[in-house]
Amino acid sequence: MKDFPGTPGTVLGLILRLSQFIFAAGSIAFMVSSSSFFNFTAFCYLIAAMGLQAIWSFVLALMDAYAVVRRKVLHNPVLVCLYLVGDWATSTLSLAAACSSAGITVLFFNDLRHCYFGEECRNYQLSVVCAFLSWIPISISSLIMLWLLAAG
Amino acid sequence: MKDFPGTPGTVLGLILRLSQFIFAAGSIAFMVSSSSFFNFTAFCYLIAAMGLQAIWSFVLALMDAYAVVRRKVLHNPVLVCLYLVGDWATSTLSLAAACSSAGITVLFFNDLRHCYFGEECRNYQLSVVCAFLSWIPISISSLIMLWLLAAG
Repeated sequence: MKDFPGTPGTVLGLILRLSQFIFAAGSIAFMVSSSSFFNFTAFCYLIAAMGLQAIWSFVLALMDAYAVVRRKVLHNPVLVCLYLVGDWATSTLSLAAACSSAGITVLFFNDLRHCYFGEECRNYQLSVVCAFLSWIPISISSLIMLWLLAAG
Repeated sequence: MKDFPGTPGTVLGLILRLSQFIFAAGSIAFMVSSSSFFNFTAFCYLIAAMGLQAIWSFVLALMDAYAVVRRKVLHNPVLVCLYLVGDWATSTLSLAAACSSAGITVLFFNDLRHCYFGEECRNYQLSVVCAFLSWIPISISSLIMLWLLAAG
């Protein structure tokens, strides 16, 4: 196994996990604060995908924090394989959820020229932006895991 | 470099490229055959992403076919690196396009209870299904390329 920044148990790995968690939680918060999100399947799916993402990233952030403090190396092949499957699943689900919600917000703001849900429209947009910002670090993490497993 | 089915220049690699091309071309054909797709940004984006996917997969299918016939091995590190970047870019764009269009079709069929575009609604659905079917082999190809580069 190669030891480079971003792998489990490193400071950059911890920063990636924390940023995934913060943006996923932000996406859920913005969406839940609008009262009509449950009328749209894509927005409900966004909340479910971001919820899964937030739980996954939070658990892995705790493990990374423990490894950083205790100076342990988390490069067990079974653990990396588990990380890889989880990262790939959550990464794909997050991108799918962000894009399907973005499709609907673009429909409202661009194609229909106007969003008819007042104040809530801004929440939809901010939630989608947070979902994309959460997807960037999770995709970096999943690439690092695949690299780590293949080069191990 | 490891030599296993699905890598460039193998029969499975050629089948993956051909399936990517066929489904991407099918997705474009179904979408273009509806007359109102240009009113939706997501559907226009789907055509652009599937167009890029079809061109990329077709060129690589020709290279794979040449390598299979001439029994050449296309495992040059620079070539694999180029394949990897192209595969990842087209894979991400394809998934994003398929999901944003799926978000809108689900909005019509599920959330609004009815699609108001008559015969064209079926074309939208078939186009999105083809886009997802095109994404599956391209994601397999991109995983194989990353594995090949990391294990090389």
